[in-house]
Amino acid sequence: MNTHDQLAELITTHLREIPDFPEKGILFRDITPLLADGEAFGQLIDLLAARYRGKVDAIAGLESRGFVLAAPLAIKLGVGMLTIRKGGKLPGPVIGVDYDLEYGSARMEIRPDSVRENDRVLIIDDVLATGGTAKAAIELVERSGASVTAVCVLMELLALKGRDQLSAYEVDAFVSF
Amino acid sequence: MNTHDQLAELITTHLREIPDFPEKGILFRDITPLLADGEAFGQLIDLLAARYRGKVDAIAGLESRGFVLAAPLAIKLGVGMLTIRKGGKLPGPVIGVDYDLEYGSARMEIRPDSVRENDRVLIIDDVLATGGTAKAAIELVERSGASVTAVCVLMELLALKGRDQLSAYEVDAFVSF
Repeated sequence: MNTHDQLAELITTHLREIPDFPEKGILFRDITPLLADGEAFGQLIDLLAARYRGKVDAIAGLESRGFVLAAPLAIKLGVGMLTIRKGGKLPGPVIGVDYDLEYGSARMEIRPDSVRENDRVLIIDDVLATGGTAKAAIELVERSGASVTAVCVLMELLALKGRDQLSAYEVDAFVSF
Repeated sequence: MNTHDQLAELITTHLREIPDFPEKGILFRDITPLLADGEAFGQLIDLLAARYRGKVDAIAGLESRGFVLAAPLAIKLGVGMLTIRKGGKLPGPVIGVDYDLEYGSARMEIRPDSVRENDRVLIIDDVLATGGTAKAAIELVERSGASVTAVCVLMELLALKGRDQLSAYEVDAFVSF
Protein backbone atom coordinates (compact mmCIF):
# COMPACT_ATOMS: atom_id res chain seq x y z
CA MET A 1 0.00 0.00 0.00
CA ASN A 2 1.15 3.56 -0.68
CA THR A 3 1.12 6.12 2.14
CA HIS A 4 -2.24 7.53 1.01
CA ASP A 5 -3.96 4.18 1.35
CA GLN A 6 -2.19 3.37 4.61
CA LEU A 7 -3.34 6.69 6.03
CA ALA A 8 -6.90 6.08 4.82
CA GLU A 9 -7.02 2.69 6.53
CA LEU A 10 -5.48 3.98 9.75
CA ILE A 11 -7.90 6.91 9.97
CA THR A 12 -10.98 4.92 9.02
CA THR A 13 -10.36 2.21 11.59
CA HIS A 14 -9.95 4.74 14.44
CA LEU A 15 -12.76 7.21 13.70
CA ARG A 16 -15.83 7.51 15.89
CA GLU A 17 -19.00 8.88 14.32
CA ILE A 18 -21.19 11.03 16.54
CA PRO A 19 -24.62 12.10 15.27
CA ASP A 20 -26.04 15.58 15.92
CA PHE A 21 -22.81 17.27 17.07
CA PRO A 22 -22.15 20.16 17.40
CA GLU A 23 -25.67 20.73 16.00
CA LYS A 24 -28.64 18.56 15.08
CA GLY A 25 -28.24 17.00 11.65
CA ILE A 26 -24.44 17.11 11.62
CA LEU A 27 -22.55 13.81 11.79
CA PHE A 28 -19.31 14.60 13.61
CA ARG A 29 -16.24 12.44 12.97
CA ASP A 30 -14.10 12.35 16.06
CA ILE A 31 -10.37 11.62 15.80
CA THR A 32 -9.73 11.41 19.56
CA PRO A 33 -9.65 7.57 19.53
CA LEU A 34 -6.77 7.79 17.03
CA LEU A 35 -4.87 10.22 19.27
CA ALA A 36 -5.45 8.13 22.39
CA ASP A 37 -3.88 5.06 20.73
CA GLY A 38 -0.15 5.74 21.02
CA GLU A 39 0.84 3.23 18.34
CA ALA A 40 -1.75 4.43 15.83
CA PHE A 41 -0.99 8.11 16.48
CA GLY A 42 2.70 7.40 15.94
CA GLN A 43 2.00 5.62 12.64
CA LEU A 44 -0.16 8.54 11.52
CA ILE A 45 2.62 11.05 12.06
CA ASP A 46 5.24 8.77 10.47
CA LEU A 47 3.09 8.35 7.36
CA LEU A 48 2.41 12.09 7.12
CA ALA A 49 6.13 12.80 7.56
CA ALA A 50 6.96 10.39 4.73
CA ARG A 51 4.66 12.34 2.40
CA TYR A 52 6.13 15.77 3.12
CA ARG A 53 9.79 15.17 4.03
CA GLY A 54 12.02 17.61 2.16
CA LYS A 55 9.07 19.44 0.63
CA VAL A 56 8.13 21.91 3.38
CA ASP A 57 9.87 24.44 5.64
CA ALA A 58 7.10 24.93 8.21
CA ILE A 59 3.81 23.35 9.28
CA ALA A 60 0.82 25.59 10.02
CA GLY A 61 -1.75 24.09 12.38
CA LEU A 62 -5.30 25.41 12.48
CA GLU A 63 -6.73 25.87 15.99
CA SER A 64 -7.25 23.63 17.68
CA ARG A 65 -7.43 20.07 16.31
CA GLY A 66 -4.93 21.05 13.64
CA PHE A 67 -2.43 21.80 16.42
CA VAL A 68 -2.49 18.15 17.44
CA LEU A 69 -1.31 17.14 13.97
CA ALA A 70 0.95 20.09 13.14
CA ALA A 71 3.11 19.97 16.26
CA PRO A 72 4.32 16.36 16.04
CA LEU A 73 4.65 16.55 12.25
CA ALA A 74 6.85 19.66 12.58
CA ILE A 75 9.00 17.89 15.19
CA LYS A 76 9.28 14.76 13.04
CA LEU A 77 10.36 16.80 10.01
CA GLY A 78 12.64 19.10 12.01
CA VAL A 79 10.83 22.25 10.92
CA GLY A 80 8.99 24.98 12.80
CA MET A 81 5.28 25.13 13.61
CA LEU A 82 3.03 28.11 12.93
CA THR A 83 -0.18 28.60 14.87
CA ILE A 84 -3.18 29.97 12.98
CA ARG A 85 -5.73 30.80 15.65
CA LYS A 86 -9.28 31.99 16.09
CA GLY A 87 -9.74 35.76 16.41
CA GLY A 88 -8.47 37.36 19.61
CA LYS A 89 -6.31 34.46 20.78
CA LEU A 90 -2.93 35.54 19.45
CA PRO A 91 -1.25 38.62 20.87
CA GLY A 92 -0.51 41.34 18.31
CA PRO A 93 0.65 42.34 15.86
CA VAL A 94 -1.64 39.97 13.94
CA ILE A 95 -3.34 39.90 10.57
CA GLY A 96 -6.79 38.33 10.28
CA VAL A 97 -9.36 37.02 7.79
CA ASP A 98 -13.12 36.72 8.41
CA TYR A 99 -14.94 33.83 6.74
CA ASP A 100 -18.00 31.58 6.79
CA LEU A 101 -17.87 28.00 8.06
CA GLU A 102 -20.15 24.98 8.06
CA TYR A 103 -22.09 26.27 11.06
CA GLY A 104 -21.74 30.04 11.69
CA SER A 105 -18.89 32.43 10.92
CA ALA A 106 -15.41 32.94 12.29
CA ARG A 107 -12.12 34.78 12.05
CA MET A 108 -8.61 33.32 11.85
CA GLU A 109 -5.42 35.20 12.66
CA ILE A 110 -1.65 34.77 12.33
CA ARG A 111 1.35 36.69 13.59
CA PRO A 112 3.09 37.49 10.31
CA ASP A 113 6.41 37.89 12.12
CA SER A 114 6.25 34.16 12.99
CA VAL A 115 6.52 33.34 9.27
CA ARG A 116 9.84 33.30 7.42
CA GLU A 117 9.66 34.85 3.98
CA ASN A 118 9.57 32.36 1.10
CA ASP A 119 9.11 29.37 3.39
CA ARG A 120 7.12 26.49 1.89
CA VAL A 121 4.26 25.97 4.32
CA LEU A 122 2.01 22.93 4.76
CA ILE A 123 -1.39 23.81 6.24
CA ILE A 124 -2.90 20.98 8.26
CA ASP A 125 -6.25 20.33 9.95
CA ASP A 126 -8.42 17.34 10.75
CA VAL A 127 -11.35 18.04 8.40
CA LEU A 128 -12.03 19.94 5.19
CA ALA A 129 -15.66 21.09 5.30
CA THR A 130 -16.73 24.25 3.41
CA GLY A 131 -13.08 25.19 2.89
CA GLY A 132 -13.57 28.57 4.57
CA THR A 133 -11.02 27.97 7.30
CA ALA A 134 -8.45 26.55 4.89
CA LYS A 135 -8.95 29.42 2.44
CA ALA A 136 -8.48 31.95 5.25
CA ALA A 137 -5.33 30.13 6.36
CA ILE A 138 -3.89 30.19 2.84
CA GLU A 139 -4.50 33.93 2.63
CA LEU A 140 -2.81 34.49 6.00
CA VAL A 141 0.27 32.47 5.04
CA GLU A 142 0.61 34.20 1.68
CA ARG A 143 0.07 37.69 3.13
CA SER A 144 2.88 36.85 5.59
CA GLY A 145 5.27 36.35 2.66
CA ALA A 146 5.42 32.54 2.49
CA SER A 147 3.95 30.07 0.00
CA VAL A 148 1.50 27.22 0.55
CA THR A 149 2.76 23.81 -0.58
CA ALA A 150 -0.47 21.98 0.15
CA VAL A 151 -3.47 21.80 2.43
CA CYS A 152 -3.52 18.48 4.25
CA VAL A 153 -6.62 17.15 6.01
CA LEU A 154 -7.36 13.70 7.35
CA MET A 155 -10.97 13.81 6.13
CA GLU A 156 -12.93 15.64 3.47
CA LEU A 157 -16.70 16.21 3.48
CA LEU A 158 -17.41 16.05 -0.25
CA ALA A 159 -20.96 17.45 -0.09
CA LEU A 160 -19.65 20.78 1.20
CA LYS A 161 -17.34 21.21 -1.83
CA GLY A 162 -14.50 22.79 0.15
CA ARG A 163 -12.05 21.76 -2.54
CA ASP A 164 -13.78 24.11 -5.00
CA GLN A 165 -12.62 27.05 -2.90
CA LEU A 166 -9.02 25.83 -3.01
CA SER A 167 -8.76 24.95 -6.69
CA ALA A 168 -5.38 26.63 -7.17
CA TYR A 169 -3.83 24.49 -4.40
CA GLU A 170 -2.93 20.87 -3.78
CA VAL A 171 -5.40 19.37 -1.32
CA ASP A 172 -4.22 16.15 0.28
CA ALA A 173 -7.12 14.29 1.93
CA PHE A 174 -7.15 10.62 2.90
CA VAL A 175 -10.74 9.76 3.73
CA SER A 176 -13.83 11.19 2.01
CA PHE A 177 -17.44 11.16 3.16
CA MET B 1 23.29 21.18 32.97
CA ASN B 2 20.41 18.94 34.01
CA THR B 3 17.25 18.79 31.91
CA HIS B 4 15.44 21.29 34.16
CA ASP B 5 18.10 23.95 33.62
CA GLN B 6 18.38 23.18 29.90
CA LEU B 7 14.61 23.59 29.56
CA ALA B 8 14.69 26.84 31.55
CA GLU B 9 17.37 28.29 29.27
CA LEU B 10 15.64 27.12 26.09
CA ILE B 11 12.29 28.58 27.13
CA THR B 12 13.70 31.85 28.44
CA THR B 13 15.68 32.59 25.30
CA HIS B 14 12.64 32.04 23.04
CA LEU B 15 9.87 33.79 24.99
CA ARG B 16 8.28 37.01 23.82
CA GLU B 17 6.68 39.25 26.45
CA ILE B 18 3.56 41.11 25.40
CA PRO B 19 2.09 43.75 27.73
CA ASP B 20 -1.66 44.19 28.21
CA PHE B 21 -2.79 40.92 26.60
CA PRO B 22 -5.43 39.52 26.73
CA GLU B 23 -6.41 42.33 29.12
CA LYS B 24 -4.83 45.57 30.32
CA GLY B 25 -2.35 44.97 33.11
CA ILE B 26 -1.55 41.37 32.15
CA LEU B 27 1.92 40.61 30.80
CA PHE B 28 1.45 37.73 28.37
CA ARG B 29 4.36 35.37 27.71
CA ASP B 30 4.12 34.03 24.20
CA ILE B 31 5.74 30.70 23.27
CA THR B 32 5.06 30.96 19.53
CA PRO B 33 8.68 31.98 18.73
CA LEU B 34 9.82 28.73 20.36
CA LEU B 35 7.38 26.70 18.24
CA ALA B 36 8.37 28.49 15.03
CA ASP B 37 12.05 27.57 15.53
CA GLY B 38 12.20 23.95 14.41
CA GLU B 39 15.49 23.22 16.14
CA ALA B 40 14.45 24.77 19.46
CA PHE B 41 11.02 23.12 19.38
CA GLY B 42 12.68 19.75 18.74
CA GLN B 43 15.07 20.26 21.67
CA LEU B 44 12.15 21.20 23.93
CA ILE B 45 10.30 17.98 23.16
CA ASP B 46 13.48 15.87 23.48
CA LEU B 47 14.20 17.36 26.91
CA LEU B 48 10.62 16.85 28.09
CA ALA B 49 10.70 13.27 26.82
CA ALA B 50 13.91 12.61 28.76
CA ARG B 51 12.18 13.72 31.99
CA TYR B 52 9.13 11.49 31.61
CA ARG B 53 10.31 8.43 29.63
CA GLY B 54 9.03 5.25 31.29
CA LYS B 55 7.04 7.18 33.89
CA VAL B 56 3.79 7.89 32.06
CA ASP B 57 1.23 5.99 29.98
CA ALA B 58 -0.57 8.95 28.42
CA ILE B 59 -0.16 12.71 27.97
CA ALA B 60 -3.14 14.98 28.56
CA GLY B 61 -2.99 18.31 26.72
CA LEU B 62 -5.07 21.27 27.84
CA GLU B 63 -6.77 23.20 25.03
CA SER B 64 -5.25 24.70 23.12
CA ARG B 65 -1.61 25.61 23.74
CA GLY B 66 -1.22 22.43 25.78
CA PHE B 67 -2.10 20.46 22.63
CA VAL B 68 1.03 21.78 20.93
CA LEU B 69 3.19 20.27 23.68
CA ALA B 70 1.18 17.13 24.46
CA ALA B 71 0.95 15.79 20.91
CA PRO B 72 4.67 15.66 20.05
CA LEU B 73 5.59 14.51 23.57
CA ALA B 74 3.11 11.63 23.30
CA ILE B 75 4.56 10.66 19.92
CA LYS B 76 8.13 10.88 21.21
CA LEU B 77 7.29 8.65 24.20
CA GLY B 78 5.13 6.27 22.16
CA VAL B 79 2.05 6.80 24.32
CA GLY B 80 -1.43 8.12 23.61
CA MET B 81 -2.65 11.69 23.87
CA LEU B 82 -5.78 12.79 25.73
CA THR B 83 -7.51 16.04 24.88
CA ILE B 84 -8.98 18.06 27.74
CA ARG B 85 -11.07 20.75 26.12
CA LYS B 86 -13.13 23.81 26.90
CA GLY B 87 -16.83 23.18 27.50
CA GLY B 88 -18.91 22.21 24.48
CA LYS B 89 -16.02 21.27 22.20
CA LEU B 90 -15.86 17.51 22.75
CA PRO B 91 -18.74 15.34 21.59
CA GLY B 92 -20.42 13.33 24.34
CA PRO B 93 -20.41 11.46 26.56
CA VAL B 94 -18.22 13.89 28.49
CA ILE B 95 -17.64 14.81 32.11
CA GLY B 96 -16.88 18.43 33.02
CA VAL B 97 -15.60 20.70 35.77
CA ASP B 98 -16.35 24.42 36.14
CA TYR B 99 -13.62 26.62 37.63
CA ASP B 100 -12.27 30.16 37.94
CA LEU B 101 -9.24 31.33 35.99
CA GLU B 102 -6.94 34.34 35.96
CA TYR B 103 -9.39 36.40 33.94
CA GLY B 104 -13.00 35.10 34.00
CA SER B 105 -14.37 31.58 34.45
CA ALA B 106 -14.39 28.45 32.34
CA ARG B 107 -15.28 24.80 32.05
CA MET B 108 -13.06 21.91 30.99
CA GLU B 109 -14.29 18.56 29.73
CA ILE B 110 -12.92 15.12 28.93
CA ARG B 111 -14.34 11.99 27.33
CA PRO B 112 -13.81 9.46 30.11
CA ASP B 113 -13.90 6.61 27.58
CA SER B 114 -10.70 8.03 26.04
CA VAL B 115 -8.86 7.26 29.30
CA ARG B 116 -7.55 3.77 30.13
CA GLU B 117 -8.11 2.78 33.74
CA ASN B 118 -5.03 3.03 35.98
CA ASP B 119 -2.95 4.79 33.33
CA ARG B 120 -0.33 7.18 34.70
CA VAL B 121 -1.15 10.51 33.06
CA LEU B 122 1.04 13.57 32.64
CA ILE B 123 -0.98 16.80 32.33
CA ILE B 124 0.77 19.46 30.27
CA ASP B 125 0.14 23.12 29.47
CA ASP B 126 2.21 26.19 28.68
CA VAL B 127 1.52 28.24 31.82
CA LEU B 128 0.44 27.66 35.41
CA ALA B 129 -1.49 30.74 36.52
CA THR B 130 -4.18 30.42 39.24
CA GLY B 131 -4.09 26.63 38.94
CA GLY B 132 -7.80 26.45 38.19
CA THR B 133 -7.38 24.80 34.81
CA ALA B 134 -4.81 22.32 36.10
CA LYS B 135 -6.95 21.45 39.11
CA ALA B 136 -9.96 20.85 36.86
CA ALA B 137 -7.83 18.66 34.59
CA ILE B 138 -6.61 16.58 37.54
CA GLU B 139 -10.19 16.02 38.67
CA LEU B 140 -11.22 14.97 35.15
CA VAL B 141 -8.35 12.49 34.79
CA GLU B 142 -8.99 10.97 38.23
CA ARG B 143 -12.77 10.75 37.72
CA SER B 144 -11.99 8.89 34.49
CA GLY B 145 -10.17 6.18 36.49
CA ALA B 146 -6.53 7.13 35.82
CA SER B 147 -3.90 8.71 38.07
CA VAL B 148 -1.94 11.94 37.60
CA THR B 149 1.83 11.52 37.64
CA ALA B 150 2.60 15.24 37.45
CA VAL B 151 1.44 18.55 36.09
CA CYS B 152 4.04 19.94 33.70
CA VAL B 153 4.10 23.59 32.62
CA LEU B 154 6.78 25.56 30.83
CA MET B 155 6.16 28.65 32.98
CA GLU B 156 4.71 29.40 36.40
CA LEU B 157 3.31 32.77 37.52
CA LEU B 158 4.30 32.70 41.19
CA ALA B 159 2.13 35.64 42.32
CA LEU B 160 -1.02 33.71 41.42
CA LYS B 161 -0.11 30.81 43.73
CA GLY B 162 -1.43 28.11 41.43
CA ARG B 163 0.83 25.55 43.08
CA ASP B 164 -1.11 25.98 46.35
CA GLN B 165 -4.15 24.47 44.65
CA LEU B 166 -2.13 21.45 43.52
CA SER B 167 -0.27 20.71 46.75
CA ALA B 168 -0.92 16.96 46.62
CA TYR B 169 0.70 16.71 43.16
CA GLU B 170 4.11 17.05 41.58
CA VAL B 171 4.27 20.30 39.62
CA ASP B 172 7.12 20.47 37.13
CA ALA B 173 7.76 24.05 36.00
CA PHE B 174 10.91 25.36 34.34
CA VAL B 175 10.66 29.14 34.35
CA SER B 176 9.06 31.24 37.09
CA PHE B 177 7.94 34.86 37.00
